Amino acid sequence: MFEAAEIGHRIDKETYDARVPELRKALYEAQYELRQQGRFPLIILLNGIEGAGKGEVVRQLNEWMDPRLIQVETFDWQTDEELARPPYWRYWRRLPPKGRTGIFFGNWYSQMLQGRVRNRIDDARLDQAIDSAQRFERMLCDEGALIFKFWLHLSKKQLKQRLKLLKNDPQHGWRLSPLDWQQNRTYDAYVQHGERVLRRTSRDYAPWYVVEGADARYRSLTVGRILLEGLQAALRMPARPRPHPHGAPLTASLDGRGLIDSLDLNRALERDEYQRLLGAEQARLAGLMRDKRFRRHALVAVFEGNDAAGKGGAIRRVAAALDPRQYRIIPIAAPSDEERAQPYLWRFWRHIPARGQFTLYDRSWYGRVLVERVEGYCTQADWLRAYSEINDFEEQLVNAGVVLVKFWLAIDQATQLERFKEREGSPFKRFKITDEDWRNREKWPQYIDAINDMVDRTSTSVAAWTLVEANDKRYARVKVLRTLNDALEAAFAREVR
Amino acid sequence: MFEAAEIGHRIDKETYDARVPELRKALYEAQYELRQQGRFPLIILLNGIEGAGKGEVVRQLNEWMDPRLIQVETFDWQTDEELARPPYWRYWRRLPPKGRTGIFFGNWYSQMLQGRVRNRIDDARLDQAIDSAQRFERMLCDEGALIFKFWLHLSKKQLKQRLKLLKNDPQHGWRLSPLDWQQNRTYDAYVQHGERVLRRTSRDYAPWYVVEGADARYRSLTVGRILLEGLQAALRMPARPRPHPHGAPLTASLDGRGLIDSLDLNRALERDEYQRLLGAEQARLAGLMRDKRFRRHALVAVFEGNDAAGKGGAIRRVAAALDPRQYRIIPIAAPSDEERAQPYLWRFWRHIPARGQFTLYDRSWYGRVLVERVEGYCTQADWLRAYSEINDFEEQLVNAGVVLVKFWLAIDQATQLERFKEREGSPFKRFKITDEDWRNREKWPQYIDAINDMVDRTSTSVAAWTLVEANDKRYARVKVLRTLNDALEAAFAREVR
Repeated sequence: MFEAAEIGHRIDKETYDARVPELRKALYEAQYELRQQGRFPLIILLNGIEGAGKGEVVRQLNEWMDPRLIQVETFDWQTDEELARPPYWRYWRRLPPKGRTGIFFGNWYSQMLQGRVRNRIDDARLDQAIDSAQRFERMLCDEGALIFKFWLHLSKKQLKQRLKLLKNDPQHGWRLSPLDWQQNRTYDAYVQHGERVLRRTSRDYAPWYVVEGADARYRSLTVGRILLEGLQAALRMPARPRPHPHGAPLTASLDGRGLIDSLDLNRALERDEYQRLLGAEQARLAGLMRDKRFRRHALVAVFEGNDAAGKGGAIRRVAAALDPRQYRIIPIAAPSDEERAQPYLWRFWRHIPARGQFTLYDRSWYGRVLVERVEGYCTQADWLRAYSEINDFEEQLVNAGVVLVKFWLAIDQATQLERFKEREGSPFKRFKITDEDWRNREKWPQYIDAINDMVDRTSTSVAAWTLVEANDKRYARVKVLRTLNDALEAAFAREVR
Repeated sequence: MFEAAEIGHRIDKETYDARVPELRKALYEAQYELRQQGRFPLIILLNGIEGAGKGEVVRQLNEWMDPRLIQVETFDWQTDEELARPPYWRYWRRLPPKGRTGIFFGNWYSQMLQGRVRNRIDDARLDQAIDSAQRFERMLCDEGALIFKFWLHLSKKQLKQRLKLLKNDPQHGWRLSPLDWQQNRTYDAYVQHGERVLRRTSRDYAPWYVVEGADARYRSLTVGRILLEGLQAALRMPARPRPHPHGAPLTASLDGRGLIDSLDLNRALERDEYQRLLGAEQARLAGLMRDKRFRRHALVAVFEGNDAAGKGGAIRRVAAALDPRQYRIIPIAAPSDEERAQPYLWRFWRHIPARGQFTLYDRSWYGRVLVERVEGYCTQADWLRAYSEINDFEEQLVNAGVVLVKFWLAIDQATQLERFKEREGSPFKRFKITDEDWRNREKWPQYIDAINDMVDRTSTSVAAWTLVEANDKRYARVKVLRTLNDALEAAFAREVR
């Protein structure tokens, strides 16, 4: 894989000087076209052997293109805000918006390679990391991103020459940290594991380009040409190509019945019993949130349900148990324009709690497979791929110690009608009912299909759905609190083992 | 000031139960009206004696109102991302957007009071902190924010009782950190300095409300009533009242000449000289940015200037000298909707660099007193107050160790015309010229007034403007680089002393 990048490629000055002006102009224009179209971001990953000129390539690109439209991101060390959250949070928060370019140094590939070379992780863990990276990139591309991955290469001999050269140059010596010097010794391991990573992550939608780094003119011109051609092609395409969705319908149960229909929605609690249980579960939650073990976890609760199912009331009963400094409620409405310029899950990632914190999502990423599916706000291909994107996302949360609890509050049509009417009649609640709610109600059967598919496809052992029978608000509230408490206790218990 | 809050106010249960339903309903409705109008945010500061029930009051408000529209912010400890930036950055990043409510615990008042009580700062420093807080709140109010400041109070006797009670209650004992316990001993100091702070920061636009905290019903109902009445009054007002701007015109020089007109715009460099000087200054900048002392500073460069004055080209020559991992260029265009929902300076604060980093603003906060003034995008009152808001902002940066350099790139009308025509003729540069540029050009005299006023009012000893004669691009670029280098060297030299 690296052989062709060790043969001593060179470009002479004359050829270089002749080619650069045209390349520069074309890159510049393509970059403005990218901004003008505003359809997708350009993401450039830079990896490879230390000293092969990653920094110089970026400098060259910044000179050829308009640096005001490029954000260069480094991930050398993690801030404490990053350390308190799942590992990919730091990449999500720095994604360039549509129309812009992001150059990622020290990205997920550097992390996994350095981990493997220093034997902090084994091959199996490396494969898991590779897999995560692939799914992340796949999602980015499906959301429209154009990704280039460059591996700047040096042969062992070239690296030695380069290190010697830099060592003797006071102007450049600062660039090589002690850590980089070790690479001379660990070169073989770096190349061996690098080959595995490249082989497994070079995909049609985001291929690797291995570029020999020894000759500055050769590497700059090569990277520039590849970028230009790829970018021009993407700009010409009317829309980024979409995978062809599977043809069979999702909701396949021939009797038309799903999990939702089999709930006994009329489970109820008497007032006295409710007061007693509510108080007990609230006290239990307050205690668990104060437990020292919670500092190693975070809590995410997702509230979905039919309109007027009582999400707001349930959330308030949860919140009432807590120190207001420990939780945050995120109501999900229409995305802001900054959110629309990012992949779908971005606006949920930005609110992922740090360790010791609790985020309650009032509606959530499941909007993609519910309202967006039913109302046609996204394409079929978009919501079909969302199931696995969501499963990937939730697995990342759980792997990072987040306790994730997902509630579907279910009521029947008669109860909904009753509550809608009650809301209309009450000046206190009139804000809670809109024309849209009435329109949604007419699409009840389509929503039932969407809900059943959602539960089928995203209720996993990693993150199961809790279906809450909610015709009786009291029963629903107690069940919500109890489920949260059980989940926290289970997480604490797993820790001990 | 606190006497009236030590007389043992109480509300009996009957009165409380009778009043709460109506209050709750009214608060809830006012909160929705706030969201509906989306004109201003509601900011609630909670301070006072430990144990006086700050947490309980927030819990009560969250129960009475819709907690989904309230964000509770705590500032107990600073993250490393916050520690690397000016102190107010952490408050800016958590401001609630228009239409929402933010409750700030452990805010700027807690910081200054704790600092004073523990003798980390003296009275003079406390007064400086008070002054900063006042200017910040004044700016927030001028931008429309509705601010409530509550001091929950306990007499010394009440505090002792409260501490004893909490100590014996296993459910609540966790809440009092060792630090809080000390307060019993330092109560007098806390009250003494608190009185000073309240006296000096209770202003018409953001008054303090001292509320006795011993009786839970009294404090909740009192805070609730005050909030409700203030919020209702603000919602009824068609627009938040504006200070009456001073009547005299700003540009007062009778001969119509300002600093800008007295520049010799034709200063120039020959090509050879330029190449030599540019290379030398770039190398100097690269060296200074690698200097260990830079880790204690950050660099902010503001690029303003006439259209086609060569801002982009100058920025590129600066960037070319640097490791792309160390700087970030922020091009300022139309604000996003998240930015529009915040005070004017918010979108600049969010990009303030951490220590050891460099942000280049391509256009900046000076848009307020340039394009927004000339085009009438904001009111006269808005841009008139902007001068002092900007001076406050820049002083904060400089006080935190930021090296701030502001460039005005000046060309004459003939040079601009030449460059506009050249841009139109070049396919490579056609993106750089729009109809708007031509329209701006017609307002040349108005812009000259605005520029002269801007320089007069914001070129301070803390953050002086550098006027750059830019008819010759080469001369301008070298001057920009040299000015940056001189500023860094001066900052390093000041450190030694």
